[in-house]
Amino acid sequence: MTEPATTVTAGMVVIGNEILSGRTQDLNVAFVGTELNELGIQLLEVRIVPDIKEEIVAAVNSLRTKFDYVFTTGGIGPTHDDITAESIAAAFGKEAVYHPTSYAILEATMKRRNIEFTEARKRMALVPEGGEVIENDLGVAPGFVMENVYVMAGVPQVAKSMFKAAAPHLRRGQTKRSRSIATHLPEGTIAAGLEAIQKNYPDADIGSYPFYNTPGGHGTTLVVRSFHEEDLVGAGDGILKMIADLNGEALSDERS
Amino acid sequence: MTEPATTVTAGMVVIGNEILSGRTQDLNVAFVGTELNELGIQLLEVRIVPDIKEEIVAAVNSLRTKFDYVFTTGGIGPTHDDITAESIAAAFGKEAVYHPTSYAILEATMKRRNIEFTEARKRMALVPEGGEVIENDLGVAPGFVMENVYVMAGVPQVAKSMFKAAAPHLRRGQTKRSRSIATHLPEGTIAAGLEAIQKNYPDADIGSYPFYNTPGGHGTTLVVRSFHEEDLVGAGDGILKMIADLNGEALSDERS
Repeated sequence: MTEPATTVTAGMVVIGNEILSGRTQDLNVAFVGTELNELGIQLLEVRIVPDIKEEIVAAVNSLRTKFDYVFTTGGIGPTHDDITAESIAAAFGKEAVYHPTSYAILEATMKRRNIEFTEARKRMALVPEGGEVIENDLGVAPGFVMENVYVMAGVPQVAKSMFKAAAPHLRRGQTKRSRSIATHLPEGTIAAGLEAIQKNYPDADIGSYPFYNTPGGHGTTLVVRSFHEEDLVGAGDGILKMIADLNGEALSDERS
Repeated sequence: MTEPATTVTAGMVVIGNEILSGRTQDLNVAFVGTELNELGIQLLEVRIVPDIKEEIVAAVNSLRTKFDYVFTTGGIGPTHDDITAESIAAAFGKEAVYHPTSYAILEATMKRRNIEFTEARKRMALVPEGGEVIENDLGVAPGFVMENVYVMAGVPQVAKSMFKAAAPHLRRGQTKRSRSIATHLPEGTIAAGLEAIQKNYPDADIGSYPFYNTPGGHGTTLVVRSFHEEDLVGAGDGILKMIADLNGEALSDERS
């Protein structure tokens, strides 16, 4: 069960009343989780908090000491409810100040678009003292990084652009690969055999996910995730054998 | 800023490696948030944690003392990675035991479907000592409630059925209503006026949400949420006036 030396971990803070009220379906957790996984960084906890400074500070401070990186989404626009920059600054005991790079980018963008560079828009240049901007290819409102905390927009297409800009700067770990095998056998039928396979491959995470009423009908997808190729081969082949022994059929066997 | 006496609050714990790895898009937060809002219960924090007992215990214990209710999704099936029942039991310092109602429902279901009632399937009857089952109209694997913690399945259609069964037992609070006004004006243009309106209606949550590349083009949706009808009328009408003063147009004005 020893983790390799190259384990890199992350937490995430999703900031926004609109996610908690159900008004907006969050899409950033799945995106960030997937991208981090590709970089060999394991997303191990997410907190979704309202637009309340004390709650943001508490969540960020809890996760930034627990994990190598923290990613936040939401609350970096120009309106009064965008309080992420000042909250992150408060989490580090700093002030939020205009960052010259961010300010210059915003000023140029507004000029180009013939839009007034209002005090509200200047708020988007606020970065905690000591923070650095994360530029993005959309040309507006850079995110920023403060020590190990990466601050991104809530709008998914903007968050993606910011993540893409930040990714090359992240320390990469070993990537967990996965092998997914689907079968029509129900979970209760494969449970005992699956547990025995898990015991034989303690370094692998073996998950079981039922599916219902899909085009393929009912069944279970079994997912092996591991740093080690031999776990994917061994546990995956063990699952195939178990399915055959139970007179079932493997509907698919995919790597990612 | 005084909250009415009927404020009822909730937290939520989403349990599952598959959400954190990005393999599965969570849909339960939006659903639970929306349903709770209808009941006058405010969802104020969500934590997404992996299938690790200590992490589940820590999240549940943190939220169950902080809020009136906690709702969990995920990890109540028959396989080895379904550790929610034993984790909730541990959070309360109890053992997980077979609940007679749950056991009887499962036994009858398996008999009806001519499926063996394996040891693994019996795991789905595990409930912390002192807990009660939440029956559901799908006929299998009841959720359960332990004091103020409601434990539901991860599969959205099953979680919905369980929530529906639990809802009549929840203490209802005053419902926050919302009024949403969309405009093509960008956030930076309305920010100053919007902040002034927020200051005049301190009990309302006024949020600003940009939209891009939608069928309606670019723009901003302004959302007023409040317990008080006069806030929806006053702040909402203030927003309409502001939009008109800025030579903009209100594209929509909706209540929910």
